[in-house]
Amino acid sequence: MSSFERNAAGRLVPTEVNGRKSVPFAGVGGHRPTGRKAAPTIATCLDYPEDGDKRANSISEALKKVGLKDGMVISSHHHLRNGDLVANAVFDAAADMGVKDLMWFPSASFPVHANQLQHLESGVIHHIEGSMNGPLGAYCSEGKMRGLGVLRSHGGRWQAIQDGEVHIDVAVIAAPTADPFGNATGDRGPAGCGLLGFALADSIYADKVIIVTDNLVPFPCIPWQIQGNNVDVVVEVPSIGDPAKIVSGTTRVTQSPDRLRIAELAARFCADAGIMKPGFSFQAGAGGTTLAFALYLRDLMRSAGVTARFARGGSNQYMTAMLEEGLIDYILDGQTFDLEGVRSMHEDPRHINTSPFTSYNFHGKGNFASMVDVAVLGATEVDMNFNGNVVTHSDGRLLHGVGGWQNCLASKCAMLLVPSFRDRIPVIVDEVTTVCGPGELIDVVVTERGIAINPRRQDLLDAVAGSDLPIKPIEELKAELDRICGVPGKVEKTEDPVAVVKWVDGTIIDTVWRVG
Amino acid sequence: MSSFERNAAGRLVPTEVNGRKSVPFAGVGGHRPTGRKAAPTIATCLDYPEDGDKRANSISEALKKVGLKDGMVISSHHHLRNGDLVANAVFDAAADMGVKDLMWFPSASFPVHANQLQHLESGVIHHIEGSMNGPLGAYCSEGKMRGLGVLRSHGGRWQAIQDGEVHIDVAVIAAPTADPFGNATGDRGPAGCGLLGFALADSIYADKVIIVTDNLVPFPCIPWQIQGNNVDVVVEVPSIGDPAKIVSGTTRVTQSPDRLRIAELAARFCADAGIMKPGFSFQAGAGGTTLAFALYLRDLMRSAGVTARFARGGSNQYMTAMLEEGLIDYILDGQTFDLEGVRSMHEDPRHINTSPFTSYNFHGKGNFASMVDVAVLGATEVDMNFNGNVVTHSDGRLLHGVGGWQNCLASKCAMLLVPSFRDRIPVIVDEVTTVCGPGELIDVVVTERGIAINPRRQDLLDAVAGSDLPIKPIEELKAELDRICGVPGKVEKTEDPVAVVKWVDGTIIDTVWRVG
Repeated sequence: MSSFERNAAGRLVPTEVNGRKSVPFAGVGGHRPTGRKAAPTIATCLDYPEDGDKRANSISEALKKVGLKDGMVISSHHHLRNGDLVANAVFDAAADMGVKDLMWFPSASFPVHANQLQHLESGVIHHIEGSMNGPLGAYCSEGKMRGLGVLRSHGGRWQAIQDGEVHIDVAVIAAPTADPFGNATGDRGPAGCGLLGFALADSIYADKVIIVTDNLVPFPCIPWQIQGNNVDVVVEVPSIGDPAKIVSGTTRVTQSPDRLRIAELAARFCADAGIMKPGFSFQAGAGGTTLAFALYLRDLMRSAGVTARFARGGSNQYMTAMLEEGLIDYILDGQTFDLEGVRSMHEDPRHINTSPFTSYNFHGKGNFASMVDVAVLGATEVDMNFNGNVVTHSDGRLLHGVGGWQNCLASKCAMLLVPSFRDRIPVIVDEVTTVCGPGELIDVVVTERGIAINPRRQDLLDAVAGSDLPIKPIEELKAELDRICGVPGKVEKTEDPVAVVKWVDGTIIDTVWRVG
Repeated sequence: MSSFERNAAGRLVPTEVNGRKSVPFAGVGGHRPTGRKAAPTIATCLDYPEDGDKRANSISEALKKVGLKDGMVISSHHHLRNGDLVANAVFDAAADMGVKDLMWFPSASFPVHANQLQHLESGVIHHIEGSMNGPLGAYCSEGKMRGLGVLRSHGGRWQAIQDGEVHIDVAVIAAPTADPFGNATGDRGPAGCGLLGFALADSIYADKVIIVTDNLVPFPCIPWQIQGNNVDVVVEVPSIGDPAKIVSGTTRVTQSPDRLRIAELAARFCADAGIMKPGFSFQAGAGGTTLAFALYLRDLMRSAGVTARFARGGSNQYMTAMLEEGLIDYILDGQTFDLEGVRSMHEDPRHINTSPFTSYNFHGKGNFASMVDVAVLGATEVDMNFNGNVVTHSDGRLLHGVGGWQNCLASKCAMLLVPSFRDRIPVIVDEVTTVCGPGELIDVVVTERGIAINPRRQDLLDAVAGSDLPIKPIEELKAELDRICGVPGKVEKTEDPVAVVKWVDGTIIDTVWRVG
């Protein structure tokens, strides 16, 4: 196993990850990239059918056609979430072919992908780099994976591909609609998921690109969220996913009185601090609390007669209703969370398909994230320095991915909406189990018992000085929680790393250790 | 001056062009690219304003900001055609800065760009690589330019940028609408030109990208045909172009009886040969004859009850009317030629913004051009081997660009619609002055005196065997013309090259010689 060094966040991180020298986190803005972007091989039309028909008969045939072999990197996207049938089929086919030691590079994995446990066990998959939600996270946590897990944000995944840190040999892109040339879209079809932004980098930079669809249309597939000019092979299958598990029929607002209070406090904070001003912008996820936040914000916007220039999705029925009501000019969407989101993406030209390149990539000429006035996020833990954790629980277990969380911290006001306790364990702690976001970027923590503002943000403290919001120092908030629950015992970490968390610039911000 | 070799088209071409070793044309499909695509420098958000405002006060300030210096390559696009005010302003500013020896790499130049003659004379511009229409072509023809002109097709320009044959230091993109982050679109604004596809490669591969707009909107500019994440600086100016010269108010169908006959014969050929079948596709330009072709084709489609799956633009009022009538499912557009085209691009989701990458790039994983059932083109000359010329006149003078012409030859049936004579000089000749397209890709030549089918296309000869169309061997057609006009005297070529014509794969298909 490799040696370790202490990074600028004070965390011990490996100097080498999966055979590649790694760069320790150097502080926010402390790392400058050098060199040039990854450069795909020059293709030629000579190698592709003139009539544009790139179809193969099966996933197996496609994998043979692109020359899948031992040790390659296969990527996939997670727009089909827990309804995805394609990634499992790909590794089942690879297993049948007798291929070994693959690296799976999903934009995220879900419980449905527990199917891959057998392939990790048998050696078909060597390791996974990508968010591991649920069973695969638990498997990794227990130290059973041969390589280290590498957790990247959505923007960090683009950055890693673009910068050549991860070279994708074969990208497999599940496509709700596609044509035989490989043009593909997520905004329609039986497995419609809205958009395919998480697969865009894969389509551009991978050596070989396979489109798998259950809804083949004659050329041209419009829109082409993925361009056929980057695609090698198209495969038609009976079904790429289970619609009920891809998007919810409806997104659900929290019913919990505590969480409703958190949401309301957060929305009032935006109004009182002057963030909610004409032409402002916001980003709120699809969790129960952040949904409630959006509804409170909507009501405050209506009362004040304020409209937003744009909202960043994950989109859902509440956001699309705000678009249609004229409270938002544009939705800049990264993923759709319910059927209304898919419908709106399909029908409304103001509902815009974005990618991690436009939204989050830190190694671009700017990105959208830093232009957003307020981003409302969750967390598993926050500490006294406002550092946030979003991947592990307090018991050290790796159970969540980073998603866009790290990227959203770039917004002008990053707010964590967290309940004071989860399973009687306080969420505000002395030191987070895993640093995913440096405290200097986390501006406000909202709990049902009060709002803590990062002392670095004197401007925000001043802005709400006259408000009747329950603003208090984070130390006071923590003391209150500790009085109720007692300070939980410290969980001992092992010395065996099982995964690393990358920062948005490709450096390593923290290590996830094997659960003892 | 460099040495020459004879290429697979039998033409003498220089072995080196502007200091770079060149590859002679190796026959259709005879050249395979090697290596990897050009790789832009990795950027970082650290170098760009967090609020997304990249504005500079003037073109001069922008050029200073991106570090313009002697010998650099500046690119521009030609969507503003003869109404473009930006490219001239850029070189005027460069001259004021005292910068020398620039290479100008426009996607095409127009008579308005005669302004650059002074900069060629004074040494601000070293040479031009790009289509030179009018005065700049004449200047080049006379051997006055210091470097060789390099004429590329639209697809070839993408290929050259992508393959790293041309490295753009500074791309200046005139944008009819843009936001301060650099997102830009051509489909609206006072200088609306429809789309900005010719600038897309520049935005992706150039070291530095400057957006110049006269219609700044708050972020986000929707749609973003050019992505702000690739942009360094945004400049607001009073006007980027003269709308009257950017797009016509209306496109004009030819009134000439001869040309109407050519158009009608070509349309009837499509019907009789079975090309015009349900779900077919076609490409026709915006010249008077090809417009007339589209109208005849429209009438035949109506009569036969046939609809097209797609038409490739240049779009115009007749094509958009066909879209609205339901005769065409989609317009896949590369440029808009009239105000109706711009309006339709703005309003109709079936009118699709394409780029040379999707449409024409030969070094991609296929492109659209080879999927098109019939492409209808013009030419200055055609010879007995069906070779076509589109850049020089019979007197050797370089007066036109290649445009998408070479790329369209990949279609399943490439037809040249040409008058028998121009200024009493026959268009069908023993040997074209400049080979721009190899005869094996040119399937049909239509004149008002008859239709010649390439003998390689026995399938087409068979398909129209029973038709009453005036099909005749090209030799017979030529003999007829020669009887009327006499064979014109041969124009002596000098031994001084002034420009080269690249084939779609980056090889050199022919040389343009100084006019004696």
